[in-house]
Amino acid sequence: MADDKKLVTAITDMEVDFPQWYTDVVKKAELADYSSVKGCMIIEPYGFALWENIQKQLDERFKETGVENVYMPMFIPESLLQKEKDHVEGFAPEVAWVTQGGDNKLQERLVVRPTSETLFCDHYHNVIHSYRDLPKLYNQWCSVVRWEKTTRPFLRTTEFLWQEGHTAHATAEESYEKTIQMLNVYADFCENVLAIPVIKGEKTEKERFAGAKNTYTIESLMHDGKALQSGTSHNFDDLFSKPFEIQYTDKDNKLQYVHQTSWGLSTRIIGAIIMVHGDNSGLVLPPRIAPIQVMVIPIAMQKEGVVEKAQELTDRLKKVVRVKNDLTDKNPGWKFSEYEMKGVPLRIEIGPKDIEKNQCVLVRRDTGEKTFVSLDNIEESVTKLLDDIQNNLYNKALENRKNKTYTAKNMDEFTKILDEHPGFIKAMWCGDQACEDKIKELTSATSRCIPFEQEEISDTCVCCGKKAKHMVIWGRAY
Amino acid sequence: MADDKKLVTAITDMEVDFPQWYTDVVKKAELADYSSVKGCMIIEPYGFALWENIQKQLDERFKETGVENVYMPMFIPESLLQKEKDHVEGFAPEVAWVTQGGDNKLQERLVVRPTSETLFCDHYHNVIHSYRDLPKLYNQWCSVVRWEKTTRPFLRTTEFLWQEGHTAHATAEESYEKTIQMLNVYADFCENVLAIPVIKGEKTEKERFAGAKNTYTIESLMHDGKALQSGTSHNFDDLFSKPFEIQYTDKDNKLQYVHQTSWGLSTRIIGAIIMVHGDNSGLVLPPRIAPIQVMVIPIAMQKEGVVEKAQELTDRLKKVVRVKNDLTDKNPGWKFSEYEMKGVPLRIEIGPKDIEKNQCVLVRRDTGEKTFVSLDNIEESVTKLLDDIQNNLYNKALENRKNKTYTAKNMDEFTKILDEHPGFIKAMWCGDQACEDKIKELTSATSRCIPFEQEEISDTCVCCGKKAKHMVIWGRAY
Repeated sequence: MADDKKLVTAITDMEVDFPQWYTDVVKKAELADYSSVKGCMIIEPYGFALWENIQKQLDERFKETGVENVYMPMFIPESLLQKEKDHVEGFAPEVAWVTQGGDNKLQERLVVRPTSETLFCDHYHNVIHSYRDLPKLYNQWCSVVRWEKTTRPFLRTTEFLWQEGHTAHATAEESYEKTIQMLNVYADFCENVLAIPVIKGEKTEKERFAGAKNTYTIESLMHDGKALQSGTSHNFDDLFSKPFEIQYTDKDNKLQYVHQTSWGLSTRIIGAIIMVHGDNSGLVLPPRIAPIQVMVIPIAMQKEGVVEKAQELTDRLKKVVRVKNDLTDKNPGWKFSEYEMKGVPLRIEIGPKDIEKNQCVLVRRDTGEKTFVSLDNIEESVTKLLDDIQNNLYNKALENRKNKTYTAKNMDEFTKILDEHPGFIKAMWCGDQACEDKIKELTSATSRCIPFEQEEISDTCVCCGKKAKHMVIWGRAY
Repeated sequence: MADDKKLVTAITDMEVDFPQWYTDVVKKAELADYSSVKGCMIIEPYGFALWENIQKQLDERFKETGVENVYMPMFIPESLLQKEKDHVEGFAPEVAWVTQGGDNKLQERLVVRPTSETLFCDHYHNVIHSYRDLPKLYNQWCSVVRWEKTTRPFLRTTEFLWQEGHTAHATAEESYEKTIQMLNVYADFCENVLAIPVIKGEKTEKERFAGAKNTYTIESLMHDGKALQSGTSHNFDDLFSKPFEIQYTDKDNKLQYVHQTSWGLSTRIIGAIIMVHGDNSGLVLPPRIAPIQVMVIPIAMQKEGVVEKAQELTDRLKKVVRVKNDLTDKNPGWKFSEYEMKGVPLRIEIGPKDIEKNQCVLVRRDTGEKTFVSLDNIEESVTKLLDDIQNNLYNKALENRKNKTYTAKNMDEFTKILDEHPGFIKAMWCGDQACEDKIKELTSATSRCIPFEQEEISDTCVCCGKKAKHMVIWGRAY
């Protein structure tokens, strides 16, 4: 049959053409497909299973901090969007407008939400009255729309899935603390579940969220040396509660404005998983997030007892890991490539000789290493190996980031680094936006963040040579 | 403090004004709130927790049948919507149109999805080639928009949340079987989890989904005798695959059209939960779906050891049920009313005398019955009682439906029933749409379904007196 002969089509080497490598992996690992709708992607079952695992584990972490899920309308009336000046200026140029409902032209145009601060503020204005109504710790999982000109699956699409948390607090201290707490939740999730090391820091004013007092970010580094903003947490202080008039009566019966935060992480993070861990054979998934952690592949299936043994092994492992088997009549070589492409962390091969010896073969996706292990305590061997793979992926990513993090004391060094071996650049900054603009113009690198962990690279701004205020992490970014 | 004195505001009696009772419950149990967006609601934390429980349990059932989740774009290009004639005629009058993206007028208008058959068909056209690509068993959880003129929370809103399954099969038999299988999944879920008895049947041609060959439905009966369509499953046969050219090569290398289904259940079902189980004290939730199954309320909290014992009891129960306690300084009477209003299935009271006797008081939400039970085996007592409550709610709802199901042999009987005591009416029908139209005109009742379990009420059509073809369930509906 024709399909039996189908070979797993090779993907472009990342060293040859990184963007093409990325697109090949997305398409051939069946994560996402293009749709007939400009700039919008279809998230296929394997990609969506990845997102479901992200949702589940992140949602649990949110709920542990007291967050509750809600659902707000997907439309925002134009007048509501306009209440906070900076916010509307930031988002209006990139929104989709609904102008007609059924056969009738709408009296007021509606925006398809690009983010929902205005809706949450409107609701908080209605439901917050007393200090007893605080804090409000709301989150929603939904899709948002931003009209993008150039798009790439997961990294930049007109519609994307995300979660957006929106909280309201009595004091400025509390909203600041919540902003940092949620940034830490993101960082912990990325490092411990996705095996992606991140740098935590504050965005410069130029890169701040439209309407926020402070924006904090976690930044990660891809294989090609480009940065990816992996999650952001914003402290609004009272900048939204004033225009939206969200006030409460405090214990002394005085009227006070609430202090707010918002924080989001999107399907973009799937792009980071691909570009941090992937290799020239395809996707490499950290076990804690992999939809399939172990794939059992029978060898010499036609031999008596092999299929049964493979099934028995799968059933045993189901109790401890996410395991599947492939009992189709495709040849083992095809199957090996297919599940390598799909990034399954661990492959188990089992054939007649193995059965005779009461063993099976474990093959790691991250290193390719093969080990023969006894079937007696296979559950233990598999779970231990998955832990090793998880740790190894994190360490490899951290090592890669270290190797691609440089320091620059002047613009010559700065541009030379980006020309020769792109990565994160640590360099001092005077705090003046003119220097930030100039660096971007000269190198197309942007300030990724002012990291919490500051170092003293030199005394002077890398750009203008004046007295430096902060060390900034710079890089070209997705 | 002012808030301490707040009494739980009484809700309207359902016998006095059923629609007002419904609105009161939705608002006061904090399930949903109105938004500034016409016809769109805000689903509040308690309402959304209910939806999350529905999602979780339904999704597990879908996955057991092999269904995989995906995500399609929320926009449909106008040209794509128009590919299937009946479908566009059915939906075009009630959709929201996006005509502008950012600052630019769109070359082709986009519809905000009212349902996603066209998007799934477009994708299936691209990815289905061989019999080996079949079946495709996809589902998505998302929101959809239908421009409604009059709206009510959960029952009819411009935007609502749902799941929509879309499958493609090799043969007509398979698509028919899948349609019925998913209808059965819905029926089983409604009866065993939501404690809502349903009638399974087929929709008449008039009530069929736009573009479907057959539509099947589960119909439930509310407290006020009105019907609510609780889930539908459509068999498209090849009616969509022909205009969308979704073809595959079969084993004999012949080109064949696929056969498709779709099926959906929405946040409407929360309206059914309210109107099937609720009473004049508010919401009554079946334990299997309740966000909080047990609420622990300490009595005489100021007495030494009471708060500690209530907390200890809560911690013990956490291992077996979804339990919370209320240790705020509001008085017990306020708390009793509050959690009755919220439909918490079981309340536990514990005070100094109980502690002395090593007991606590269990109070059922469904019957109000109080029992004193030993703390020694409280886990067992609570789980057993929750099962009893679940069963009792189902039996009560079934009893109520039986009491409100009538038979009519002619239009005099038919109208008399609806005037005096609305409910389901079993009556024979000739199969002619003219009679269906006439019945609706005369009584505002519609055909709910042609139930799978047919009975022989008489030989002749209840409307025209000609030879009857089917027994139909009729009723006024939400």
